[in-house]
Parts: sequence; structure tokens; C-alpha cells
Amino acid sequence: MSTILKENLIGLDTHRVIKVYLPPGYNDSKRSYPVVYYCHSIFSTAEKLLEDGKLVNVLEQAFANKIIPEFIFVVADYSSPTTGSLYENSPVSGRWLDFTVHELVPFIDKQFRTISHRDSRAITGDFMGGRGALKLAMTHPEVFSVVYALHPVATGAGYIPWAANEVNWKKIHQAKTFAELAGDGRAQMFVAMAQAFLPNPHRPPFYCDFWMEPDNGEPKLHTENTRKAQAGFLLDQSLEESAPNLQQLRGIAFDWARYDPTPTHVYSNQAFTRKLEDLGIEHEAEEYRGTPWNKNWIANGRVYSRMLPFLGRWLVFEGKE
Amino acid sequence: MSTILKENLIGLDTHRVIKVYLPPGYNDSKRSYPVVYYCHSIFSTAEKLLEDGKLVNVLEQAFANKIIPEFIFVVADYSSPTTGSLYENSPVSGRWLDFTVHELVPFIDKQFRTISHRDSRAITGDFMGGRGALKLAMTHPEVFSVVYALHPVATGAGYIPWAANEVNWKKIHQAKTFAELAGDGRAQMFVAMAQAFLPNPHRPPFYCDFWMEPDNGEPKLHTENTRKAQAGFLLDQSLEESAPNLQQLRGIAFDWARYDPTPTHVYSNQAFTRKLEDLGIEHEAEEYRGTPWNKNWIANGRVYSRMLPFLGRWLVFEGKE
Amino acid sequence: MSTILKENLIGLDTHRVIKVYLPPGYNDSKRSYPVVYYCHSIFSTAEKLLEDGKLVNVLEQAFANKIIPEFIFVVADYSSPTTGSLYENSPVSGRWLDFTVHELVPFIDKQFRTISHRDSRAITGDFMGGRGALKLAMTHPEVFSVVYALHPVATGAGYIPWAANEVNWKKIHQAKTFAELAGDGRAQMFVAMAQAFLPNPHRPPFYCDFWMEPDNGEPKLHTENTRKAQAGFLLDQSLEESAPNLQQLRGIAFDWARYDPTPTHVYSNQAFTRKLEDLGIEHEAEEYRGTPWNKNWIANGRVYSRMLPFLGRWLVFEGKE
Amino acid sequence: MSTILKENLIGLDTHRVIKVYLPPGYNDSKRSYPVVYYCHSIFSTAEKLLEDGKLVNVLEQAFANKIIPEFIFVVADYSSPTTGSLYENSPVSGRWLDFTVHELVPFIDKQFRTISHRDSRAITGDFMGGRGALKLAMTHPEVFSVVYALHPVATGAGYIPWAANEVNWKKIHQAKTFAELAGDGRAQMFVAMAQAFLPNPHRPPFYCDFWMEPDNGEPKLHTENTRKAQAGFLLDQSLEESAPNLQQLRGIAFDWARYDPTPTHVYSNQAFTRKLEDLGIEHEAEEYRGTPWNKNWIANGRVYSRMLPFLGRWLVFEGKE
Repeated sequence: MSTILKENLIGLDTHRVIKVYLPPGYNDSKRSYPVVYYCHSIFSTAEKLLEDGKLVNVLEQAFANKIIPEFIFVVADYSSPTTGSLYENSPVSGRWLDFTVHELVPFIDKQFRTISHRDSRAITGDFMGGRGALKLAMTHPEVFSVVYALHPVATGAGYIPWAANEVNWKKIHQAKTFAELAGDGRAQMFVAMAQAFLPNPHRPPFYCDFWMEPDNGEPKLHTENTRKAQAGFLLDQSLEESAPNLQQLRGIAFDWARYDPTPTHVYSNQAFTRKLEDLGIEHEAEEYRGTPWNKNWIANGRVYSRMLPFLGRWLVFEGKE
Repeated sequence: MSTILKENLIGLDTHRVIKVYLPPGYNDSKRSYPVVYYCHSIFSTAEKLLEDGKLVNVLEQAFANKIIPEFIFVVADYSSPTTGSLYENSPVSGRWLDFTVHELVPFIDKQFRTISHRDSRAITGDFMGGRGALKLAMTHPEVFSVVYALHPVATGAGYIPWAANEVNWKKIHQAKTFAELAGDGRAQMFVAMAQAFLPNPHRPPFYCDFWMEPDNGEPKLHTENTRKAQAGFLLDQSLEESAPNLQQLRGIAFDWARYDPTPTHVYSNQAFTRKLEDLGIEHEAEEYRGTPWNKNWIANGRVYSRMLPFLGRWLVFEGKE
Repeated sequence: MSTILKENLIGLDTHRVIKVYLPPGYNDSKRSYPVVYYCHSIFSTAEKLLEDGKLVNVLEQAFANKIIPEFIFVVADYSSPTTGSLYENSPVSGRWLDFTVHELVPFIDKQFRTISHRDSRAITGDFMGGRGALKLAMTHPEVFSVVYALHPVATGAGYIPWAANEVNWKKIHQAKTFAELAGDGRAQMFVAMAQAFLPNPHRPPFYCDFWMEPDNGEPKLHTENTRKAQAGFLLDQSLEESAPNLQQLRGIAFDWARYDPTPTHVYSNQAFTRKLEDLGIEHEAEEYRGTPWNKNWIANGRVYSRMLPFLGRWLVFEGKE
Repeated sequence: MSTILKENLIGLDTHRVIKVYLPPGYNDSKRSYPVVYYCHSIFSTAEKLLEDGKLVNVLEQAFANKIIPEFIFVVADYSSPTTGSLYENSPVSGRWLDFTVHELVPFIDKQFRTISHRDSRAITGDFMGGRGALKLAMTHPEVFSVVYALHPVATGAGYIPWAANEVNWKKIHQAKTFAELAGDGRAQMFVAMAQAFLPNPHRPPFYCDFWMEPDNGEPKLHTENTRKAQAGFLLDQSLEESAPNLQQLRGIAFDWARYDPTPTHVYSNQAFTRKLEDLGIEHEAEEYRGTPWNKNWIANGRVYSRMLPFLGRWLVFEGKE
């Protein structure tokens, strides 16, 4: 039951499901454990992430094979009546960063035997949740000290300019409800972005402005809104100001699949790691063979062979500095 | 009324519409004119290409401003009950190269005052029609001596491997008619490709094999079919053998838009020009700001400021060598 | 004899050679002409640019074929004891923007029958001079209204981060004179950049700081200097603030060669045009087959078939609005 | 003392140094061990590879931390009076593939307690040695069953066409001895390529043809030689015929650094993995942050955290299937 998420204009359910995976030794020990938080992507939920059992399989294999010492794994529900959280604070679509830091983490620390210290907290996630993981790392180094983002999106402006993107703006401008956008994931996504980064509580039905505004019935680039939305959504735009935060982290890594059907995500991640490099921020940044969805939760996949060893190297476990 | 196109298994209409634009001076002169043939793209027709009047506007402006001397412009109908011609000879989806060379060109030469010589014939087209223009140039230098392809596709394997492409193969494998693929342009396109390059007259309903074949109900990469389809469809694969043909041309040019929503087309064209370079084939190859659809038929656009001056430079006009 | 360039710490010659090409009709007419200014690249001079006669050939061919009405062509000498002007104002390496705007242009307007108005002045150049042309356009729309940059460099951070660039920093840090860097164009270039963007009049011998500073004898990334140098040198970093200036121009174009042996230049130009697009700034941006040096001053080359028609379209000539 | 390498025209020393690292437990056990062969790069030797001690450190750390069971590590000397082996059979520059397979491997199997079976032999290497590792895997699956190539080169034609490459061909054509090319690594390399792939025993001083041949004193593209040299040197050109061999391997992996100062290597590796994908060949292909030289032999580097776990997963060790 979130208090923070009450503040929104899109009908968010303030009862949030939280899925917690306790490691095999938890019940028989009195030890405290590090916690790995996971941000799921848009059009997903905490339940969907776990339903096919692959995620738990990978964790159990990793603990069995001593790839990493035991930890607690937490994934909250970041879904919404629109596309789901973009992991931002917005008066229209919810203050998701605040929810994570001020409600979720304290709740977990209270309910379970966690090591309640940044050195023992990691933030992870995939796709839009990868953006979430990086954003939380960039803004809350006092809470998390290790980050691993699996194929994050929105790390940069990408290959195709926003002005040249194919979006059905007319449909968006004419829609009276979000339901009218059903079946057009792209239109839904662009409305969610506008709600998060161009909120305008006085402009129903979506309570936001757009970077393509109607102009005599035709969509027309609004450069000021474009700049504002990019400044908020694209992580590279706040990288310079976040650099001191990132310098405090113990470990930073992200990876991405070469064959995302939206190559702009690939291009953006390549640009993002370059910017980190010139800011002198140590990190890992690997591009791998695969799609954003087919290599994470498999045997010897990205999580098992890359993310978990990385977390094991940088998180502080009990009895270890 | 095409005899050649009678041979097909997809229900082609053998009555083909041919649109001919005669230049302003044609009726009042006795001169003969060069002919520029244009290959339209899939999901289009000769009529659609002309219906908004922009094409004729550009030609008239160019003649008025002496950008190029007058010529005859011809666009035949290459549509089909599936997606339209891929500009190939196939026992299943039609022998379109033969139709063009053995029926269309002789027909035009018979009906109009053309200069009926390769030096005065150019082949042009856009998108899949750009592929057609290049393919005709690669195979019939005895008919055409100048080629300008506007944003051709299928010039190379592209950025995303076929094995990693997102296609609804299950739907294709289960479909009983082409109509069942309505609304899924990607599935339609991949069937058309299979019909052109993996024809199999004994396998209804589509009379073709696939590079993803069903394997216990799941699509599975069939590497032999993949190689065969790529060898046929992708122009770079036959470039080496076509090199002597291309060496005979008077002028070769193609261009492409940077912001094709399918960046694999951009990547392929970049690779194609490199291959031409190493084969020692002189040509122009420009990448421009725009999408494949928004720069061709406008004032000072690609056709007006790039293609027409190029054709004017290399075609032989009457009274000029 | 420049007054402005007296202020420098690298021994600039204040006598500057200015090459002026008057069009064929100049002497026999009383008309006034537009002026096209040209910025040459580093390691070059006004004299070198003209010495093989190709440049004048191209201009004469263009006038003869009425590709563009006649204009006056001016190229000043931007060479220096180091690598030449980077087209910036620096207390160490010279105030070159000021020299161009406050000395060169007024001098030309005084000596020749020019149309002394921004509508009839274009700024052009190649490579580092292409950067100069864009920089002057971004900062002085009151002087120039048309810009065409041939393969500009330093338009963005490029593919390889500065932190990962191969430069012999030890040699730079140990050098006592610029002459010690002879034969290492890369080292010379990086010193010139530091002199322009990290000037430090109190630090001989080069009077500048570096983004790799010596740290116990080893070069170490200095992130603050890196940010400062990038902010100054890379044009995309000041694009947002220059947008209102660029919006005032009549015509903006640049192009670049696909096969620059330093692909980071290609990558940067691709990123630069995208940024312009999202800022809503109309422009042309073509990538062509060639190197930065082999397509400009040839028959049917970039200058003849692209730059001059563009200038002709946007400059105001006498008797024409 | 190699018999095979006697056949050459460049003065190869037939006494070859072979460096063998025996694992810590070798002397105190009677076990047999898998063997990992390593191909060093051009301008290097077996001794240089080992001289700074980092390589042995990484191996010892890996054995100590049980990253991989113990194995024997072998690196032979592939240097030459020119640039070193390109890992090919050439009548001019030596039959290096034959040397490796018919002399080196049998010699090692005779001298040490190896598991003399393909299942327990891996071939590895970096840069040109990475090419060597892949080439040996593509041609000798009866000898090696696991391959890991660190930043291989020559896997494809790359970003810049050979015809547009900057090479001092005049110097090459005029040189009377290899020594005259001293200091120009690029010229040396291109001669070595020509000796390997365009051998011509009747044409001193280099006993080879070139893809840029002199033509009235000017270098001119020779397209037939270009095709022949590319077909031999570029691994992607023989990938289709090698596919059945690669299908027999237990494990295939390669990786590459994003910041190779020659980005054509990066581009080629990206194209190479795509081709493998469409041939249905399972493999790993990662692009990482770094240069080709700064991430291999460090703590948590590519060898320690990527290559050795991969070898451990696929090699057959004693008492393990």
C-alpha cells in the first residue's frame, strides 16, 4: 500500500505486489543478506517476470554452483494502467523513484534479515527496467552501491532523430482515452513518455504536452518540448551532473543485445559507455549476440555468467568486507 | 496483355497497366526521345505512383528549368495479389525481369518515338523498385545503360541476421491462404520472398519452401534454404558475377535515406557501395537526411536535384553523343 | 596586417595573405557581387589551396555552364606556427573568429564591389575549415547567411572516446618546443586544441593545460579539462545555444566522405545532423563515396555538383531577391 | 627445428622457439592434461608475449581460484623476417598451418603428458593470432575442438574498401628490400599479406603480386588480384565452405574491443558473427569496452573472466566427459 503513488492522474493502483525470493539457506540461518532489487520492463509485471520459473532456476543454479554467495532477490510491481513505470517522478504518472527509495527499500529492510546498507544493495533490471536501474544508481548512491542494467533503453538520443520517428501522432492527438491506443504499443509508449517528462495536470485526457503538437490538425515538431522531454528521458543528458554520484558506486555494468529490432537502443548504449569513459567513470559495457529477450534467463546466459559474478564481486556479504 | 506473366501460381492479372508520360515537346516535334523506365515498390502500383501529381510536377519543373533535356517516362504496373514484384524471374510469382526486357521495352519502342538503343535507356525505381532497377542493370546491360536506384533494398544481408529477425513464422506455416496474412506486412513480404527465391510448385498453398521451416510446430532455421534465398534476393551476392555487366554501363548511381525505420537497409547499401568499390566499378552512392519516402518527389528533392541531373549527364539525347 | 591577431603567444605572423578570385565579368561590369569566403584546413595555407589550379578550374567551369551566377571567392591565410587556425578565439593561439568578422570581411567589402549584406555572403571550407565555416555560421548570422561545410571535423565526440585515443602524451608533456613534435601530426594537433580550448598563459612552453595531465610521469585523464575542451571544440556541444542563430540563416548544408581514415569524423557528422533535426533546423547533410580529399575539386565533384548549386539557390545576387 | 618451414622465400629461421607453461600440479601428478595453444600477433614473438609476467599471473590466479581446471599452455614462435605469420600456407612466406598441425601439436603430445585428442585441445590467440585461431578451427576440427579468438582481425572486408585504403604503394613498388619499409608498419603488413595470398615465386624482391599494381608509375586497383587476396585473407569469404568443420567444434567464441584505432576490425567482427548466425553455427561474440591490448592480461580481464571459463566449460579434462 503506497502513499507516494497516490499522487497521480492515471488511476494507479496503490496496492503494489512485491515478489521476494529468499535464498535456500535463509530459513535455517540467522545471517543477514545483501538484497538485489530488480526493475521489470514496461508491459510487464512482477508476476509475469517470475511465472515461467526460469528466473528462479538461474538463481538456484548460481547458488548451487557457488557462482555468487546467497542474497535476497526483490522485484516490486511497477505496472500501470498505461505502459508501466518509466522509473521517474512525475505528478501525472507517479513518483516511482521516491516509491522505490522511500517505501520499497525500507519495507524490505523491515520485513527481512537484510544487510541494510548501500554496500550490500544492488539495483538491476532489463530494458525499461534497465533504464530504471541506471537512473536509481545515478540519483541514489546513498541507497545502492552496485548496478547491473540488462539491455537498458533510453540511454541516449539514438540513431533516428525523434523528429523523424514514425509515430501515429494524429491518433494520439485525437484520442479521448488511453484505451483508444490499444494495439499500438508505440503510441502508448510515447504517451507514457509525455506523461512522465512533459506533465501538464491541466490538459486532459492525458495530462501532458507533446513534442509533436497539433498544428492545424497536422503534427508539428515543438522544439522546446522536444528538448525538455529528451533532457528528462535520455540518461546521457544528465550524466555529467550525475557523475559525482556514479563515482561513489562500488560497481557499474550494463550490457545490450546486438539484435534489438530497434537498433536505436544499441546505438544509444554505445554512445552512453563512451560518455562514461570520458567522464572517467569505471564500468563494464558489453554488446552480445542475441536479442534483448533470449539470453538473460537461460543456462550460461547473461544473468548467470555475467550479471551474477559481477554482483558477487562488488556486493558486500556478511563476514566479508 | 503479358504472355510471359501467364506462367505463375499466384493468380497474376496478365493485363498490365502501363503509364507513359510524354514530355511537353513531344507532340509538336518529330524528334525521338530517350526513355526512363521506373520500377515502383511493393504495396504500390503505377497508378498510385502518379496519383498525387507530384511526380509529374517534378518532371515538368525539371524540363522547364533545363535541368535535363526532355525524355519519355514509363512506369508499368508491377503489382500482384501478394505484395508485388520483387523484380525476379520465378515460376511461382512471375518472370518479371523477362516481362520488362522482352515485353515492356519492345512495346514502348513500338508505340512511341523512342531512341531504341541502350545508350538512351535508363532504369530507375525506389525501394523494392530500386532493387529492380539495380537487378535489371546487373543482368541486362544490352537494354539499359544508365541506372539510378532511389533507396534500393535487398542489396545485402543487413545488420540483423535473418536468423534473428522477428517474423511470425508460425502464422505463415499455418496459413491456408495469403489473405490470412492481411495486416502483417512483414509476413506477407517474407512469403513473397520465399515464392520468388525458394519456389516449390508442389507445395501449396504458397508453392514455396522457407528458410525457417516448421520443426515439431516450432520454426527452425534451415541453413541451406537460407543460403539459397540470400543468394537470390541479396544483390551483393551476385555482384561479382555481374561485374562485367556493370562495367559496360554509362552511369551507375544509387542513394538512400539515413532514417529508414528498418536500418538494415541503410547498412546494406553502405556495404553494397564498398563492394562495388573493390570491384573497381565507378558509381555514386549518397546517404541523405530523410526517410525513404519524404525527399524524392519534392522541390529540390532527390529526383530533381540528384537523379535527373545524373540521367541528363549520362543518357544520350538526339543530336548529342 | 591584422591588429587582432597580435594578441597571441605562439608567434603568429600578423601579415596575412588574402587570395581573392574575381569572376570573369568583374572587370567589364559595374555590378556588385556576392562573396563566398572559404576556410582552409590545418596544415594548409591559402596559397596551397590554389596552387594546383583545380579550384579555379571548377569555378570557371561552373560560371561557364551557368551552374551558379558569378560571385567573388575569398580565401585568407589561416596558417600558424603550430597546425593552423582551429577557427576559435584564444588568448594563446589567436582570435580567429574576430579576425574574420572584424578585419577580413570589412577589408574585402572596402576593396571590391561586393554586395555588403549577410544575404549575399556565404561561408564555406573543408575539414578543419569546415568546422570554421559552421562555427562562423553558428556565431555570426549577422555576417553570413549561407553555409556549406565540406567534410567538417570536430562536430561531435565521435566513435572513440578521448580517454581511449592513442596519443603520445608523454612526448607532449616532455617537449620544450613545438618543433620537438615534428613528424607527429597527432601530437601537434592535440597541442593546438589545448592551446585553443584550455589556454593558460602562465604555463610555458605551450601556454595551455591538457585533458591528459602528467601524474607521476604517466598521462592521466583530467575529467574537468576534458569536459571544458570538448565543450569548446565540439560543435554539437554549443548547438542548442546556437540554434536561434542558425534559424536565421538562409541555407545550411554540409557533407562528408564515407572513407575518412579517421571514421570518428564520419560518426560525428552523422550525430550532428541528427541534433540539428531535433532542434528543428532545416539543412542538407549528405554522406558520399570518397575520401575527404578526392572529390571536392574535380569535374562533377562535390563543389561543382553540390556546393555551388546550393550557394546559387540561397545567396542573393544583384537584381534578384 | 621445422622441416615444413624450410619451404619459403623470405629467409625464415627454421629453429622455432616454443614456450610451454606447465600447471602447478604437473610435476607432482601422473595425470594427463588438455592443451591450450596460443597464436601470438604480428610484430610479436612467443618471448615477448610472456616477458612481463602478466600472462602467467592470470593463469596462476585462475588455477588458484578454480576458474578452470589445470591445463598445459603452449605458445610457439610465429615471428618472421617480415611481420610474422598470418597463419596461412604460402610457398613464399611459409606453411604455418601445416607447421602447427603437423609439427607443433605432435611434438607437444610427444614431450608432455597431454590428452592427445581434439576434445582436449583448444586453439586461442589475439589480433592476427586471433585470425590464426579461427583459421585453424575452420580448417582443422580433427585437431582442435574449442576456439577462443581475442580480437581477431581479417574476419571481413571491413568499413573502408581496400581500394580506398591509405597505403604508400609507390614506396612498396619501388622497394628493393623489406628493410626499406622500416617504420611503415602499414606498408610492411600489406607486403606480408601479398606474400601470403598473392605469392609469385618468380617476382623478386617480394615474390608476390599486389592488388594495387604499378601502372605508369601510379598504383592502380587490380580487381582480380583484389578478389583473390580478399578470398584468401578474409575469413568470412571461406566461412560457407568451412561451416561443416565449425559445426563439429565443441565451443566457438570470439570477442573484440570497441576502441580499436582501426575500426574496420570492429566492423568486420560484427559482420562475421552475423554470418555465423545465418549459417546456424552456435557461438559467442562479445564486443567490450577497451582497446585490443588493455583488457586481456589483467585482473578480471577478458582472459580471466571470459576466455578461461569458456575453455573450462568446453574442454574435456581427465576424469570428466
